Amino acid sequence: MSSNRIRFAPLQERVISAEAAADFIQDGMVIGMSGFTRAGEAKAIPLALTEKHNDKAPQITLITGASLGNDLDKKLTEKGILARRMPFQVDTTLRKAINQGQVMFIDQHLSETVEQMRGFTLKRPDIAIIEAIAISEDGLIIPTTSVGNSASFIEFADKILIEINTSVSPTLEGSHDIYTPSARPNRTPIPLTQVDDRIGTKGIPFDPNKVLGIVFNDLPDSPSTVTDPDTETQAIADHLIQFFENEVKTGYLPKHLAPLQAGIGSIANAVLTGFKDAPFEDLVMYSEVLQDSTFELIDAGKMKFASGCSITLSKKCGDRVFNNLEKYKDKFVLRPQEISNHPEIVRRLGIISINTALEFDIYGNVNSTHVGGTKMMNGIGGSGDFARNAHLAIFVTKSIAKGGAISSVVPMVSHVDHTEHDTDILVTEQGLADLRGLAPRERAKVIIENCVHPDYKEILEDYFNRACEKGGHTPHLLKEAIEWHTNFEDYGSMKPNKN
Amino acid sequence: MSSNRIRFAPLQERVISAEAAADFIQDGMVIGMSGFTRAGEAKAIPLALTEKHNDKAPQITLITGASLGNDLDKKLTEKGILARRMPFQVDTTLRKAINQGQVMFIDQHLSETVEQMRGFTLKRPDIAIIEAIAISEDGLIIPTTSVGNSASFIEFADKILIEINTSVSPTLEGSHDIYTPSARPNRTPIPLTQVDDRIGTKGIPFDPNKVLGIVFNDLPDSPSTVTDPDTETQAIADHLIQFFENEVKTGYLPKHLAPLQAGIGSIANAVLTGFKDAPFEDLVMYSEVLQDSTFELIDAGKMKFASGCSITLSKKCGDRVFNNLEKYKDKFVLRPQEISNHPEIVRRLGIISINTALEFDIYGNVNSTHVGGTKMMNGIGGSGDFARNAHLAIFVTKSIAKGGAISSVVPMVSHVDHTEHDTDILVTEQGLADLRGLAPRERAKVIIENCVHPDYKEILEDYFNRACEKGGHTPHLLKEAIEWHTNFEDYGSMKPNKN
Repeated sequence: MSSNRIRFAPLQERVISAEAAADFIQDGMVIGMSGFTRAGEAKAIPLALTEKHNDKAPQITLITGASLGNDLDKKLTEKGILARRMPFQVDTTLRKAINQGQVMFIDQHLSETVEQMRGFTLKRPDIAIIEAIAISEDGLIIPTTSVGNSASFIEFADKILIEINTSVSPTLEGSHDIYTPSARPNRTPIPLTQVDDRIGTKGIPFDPNKVLGIVFNDLPDSPSTVTDPDTETQAIADHLIQFFENEVKTGYLPKHLAPLQAGIGSIANAVLTGFKDAPFEDLVMYSEVLQDSTFELIDAGKMKFASGCSITLSKKCGDRVFNNLEKYKDKFVLRPQEISNHPEIVRRLGIISINTALEFDIYGNVNSTHVGGTKMMNGIGGSGDFARNAHLAIFVTKSIAKGGAISSVVPMVSHVDHTEHDTDILVTEQGLADLRGLAPRERAKVIIENCVHPDYKEILEDYFNRACEKGGHTPHLLKEAIEWHTNFEDYGSMKPNKN
Repeated sequence: MSSNRIRFAPLQERVISAEAAADFIQDGMVIGMSGFTRAGEAKAIPLALTEKHNDKAPQITLITGASLGNDLDKKLTEKGILARRMPFQVDTTLRKAINQGQVMFIDQHLSETVEQMRGFTLKRPDIAIIEAIAISEDGLIIPTTSVGNSASFIEFADKILIEINTSVSPTLEGSHDIYTPSARPNRTPIPLTQVDDRIGTKGIPFDPNKVLGIVFNDLPDSPSTVTDPDTETQAIADHLIQFFENEVKTGYLPKHLAPLQAGIGSIANAVLTGFKDAPFEDLVMYSEVLQDSTFELIDAGKMKFASGCSITLSKKCGDRVFNNLEKYKDKFVLRPQEISNHPEIVRRLGIISINTALEFDIYGNVNSTHVGGTKMMNGIGGSGDFARNAHLAIFVTKSIAKGGAISSVVPMVSHVDHTEHDTDILVTEQGLADLRGLAPRERAKVIIENCVHPDYKEILEDYFNRACEKGGHTPHLLKEAIEWHTNFEDYGSMKPNKN
């Protein structure tokens, strides 16, 4: 086994136990670890770390690509190991610790973390812990189901720990394209002009002298938790598809549209799934995560090629894809998240970006991260990388939550992740608001008319009309602007208190 | 005169009066006009338009590079000619009309306007009106003191009107570098890797069949209104320079720093002027507007080269520069604003971006545009183009305004133009907050400690402490979060009402 997986001769005798590897992790260290959307995280070493006696557990800064599977963030939090965490997470236990101020969470655009390390505005890792399929004969670390920030962690870290995951099919080797921008001030353009361009190497080059050891694991990625489309997500998909059909009809978009990006989650997944029955052909994707819907579109003959930085699938879809990799291998590529999300490439390709909002307001500002303006949900992820530079920046959400106690369309969002300058299209199951070329007062009318749930439409109209009487480019009644949120805090509903 | 300025034979007989040119402008048209930060706007034709009888004045959408001089926005507003205006303005009369909802203003990232036209998400101009020094023998329109969006307006407009400004020295010819990104989906990388690279042509290519006529004018640009440094702006400059010195000392920045961008205005200008006596050498600039300070740094031997999209100078500095153009000509270049502000280039070069905030909050969100969350000031301009992709995104402001009635550091900004994800360094005359790598609660401590005016420090600390007791990743007391702004509305001061 070892000889197939460690084909690079100088490292063949460097296998150590997960426990021995975990011992290298000292209090105060910055750890750069593989893992993006529950795919390809190192598993054995962080698990061994959580199994140390409490009094030996170090406190660390953990930087990953994005979220982790296998309950790692939960277990690391419970053991008090996480002093700082960046740039994204989706774990309930960690989220609670973040919101209690116990873990310092730095919520970043996912393309920027390693750029900041490269420029010394963020501390570089002491140790990189990277999951791999193998180490090739020519000395490349072959990532598994995600690339994330691994290439740059390996470059910038003082030391490297490698986890070889034997549960990942060796057939995945060759699916990665590793390219990292050179250091400034002599950086050259990123030479990617089409979604299927290969511009780098099939694995990550590294300095063998930095390797502390190699650990074997056979733990699978956690499967995707994305749920099936429901009536509302289907309606959102339908509105969007109708919009795209109109764009094609008017000649503003070709029949293959433009490279698609879709955020992770059930709504975006439903929208993509909706493309299966839509009259578009030869679609391509330039996104972060390749989800079930990506492979369904490939299977349906609708999608020609998908570029991402991780693959996160349900158990069922994962079995189909990973057991038939030869069939899919020329249809996708995995890149570092700095490249999958890079503003230079997003702008060059003219991506159609579809991401989920927690809430948006009548002027087009979007909150993607903070419940009630204070509590972190998951993080901004790559949504800003894409939306700012997209050809079309689309945000989707159901119009209400908690059985109608919350309206996702509000007078003023309680936290802004995407500004009014950056949003083109907003969609709920109620309808679609096309904000392109509109001034704030015009946007408000379109959003209230098309996106708001009927239960909230009248009071939102009333707010807007009274605000307009007061005046301003972006009319607001500041005393009422976030009252809907305080109503929810006080009375459990955003609706005006009747008492 | 005409033969020197119209050297392109097919157009030599096409001179018309400004009044005749203005007659081409019909009700409902979209007009794309040159002009960026009071530099290089077409003058005679819009002035002729304002002199038509009221009942003949059309209502138009006016799209420019940025702000206009010669009171054009004032006069056009007074005549009711502006139905819609984008993407930036600085005029008091127009601002009032915008805030009363009479003129629909679309406030955009300045790199995006023509990208949206190229992609058909914004309507293309019916007529482009472009100020020029000359039309060259090989058929290029040579812009004057700004390039702005002129190259793309000329490409996308149905028809073209040219204004040749004989007050602009022909020696400026050769200072422009015109490059526009190709249309998607086959766009190639923008081949600019150094601030002094020339990647395009010395003028704007055009279709002579689209030219409606050529008008002569001899009206100068309005001089810059930037004021001299005062105690506070000098203190801001000092804090920043000390910060840069530390960055050089720790090896995070080289002695020539990184390409500098500075927003227009007195504070940014004061900061740049401060570099004259600072221990940095061989500075370069990659910015929008070349201001007095740019040429002062060149004169002082501190700056090697400056790339911009317009030159806006005081009368005194303008006389010096424009009467000695031969001396400066190899030290600067003027590019289209899409290129001067392009995310691809800003990220590649690793710019240090310095822009002015109206207010920022304890978590690092910045309001650049809206007074009291409602009233438009000028617009976001290029600040978002630069800040999002900069190596260092710096925002500066005086800690108080209106004699202390307003604190520029608040619990929650009333409008967000730059999110907490995008700001690295905040500076007031009180001090500098370095937010890099910090979680929201940590940022709040640094901002309150370093940036807040003493009059507001205690109440801001109190707010933050009570918010932390309530909890959250970004602790807020929603009922009080924008109370400072409503206090100002109600009592004329942000301080707590003592009644």
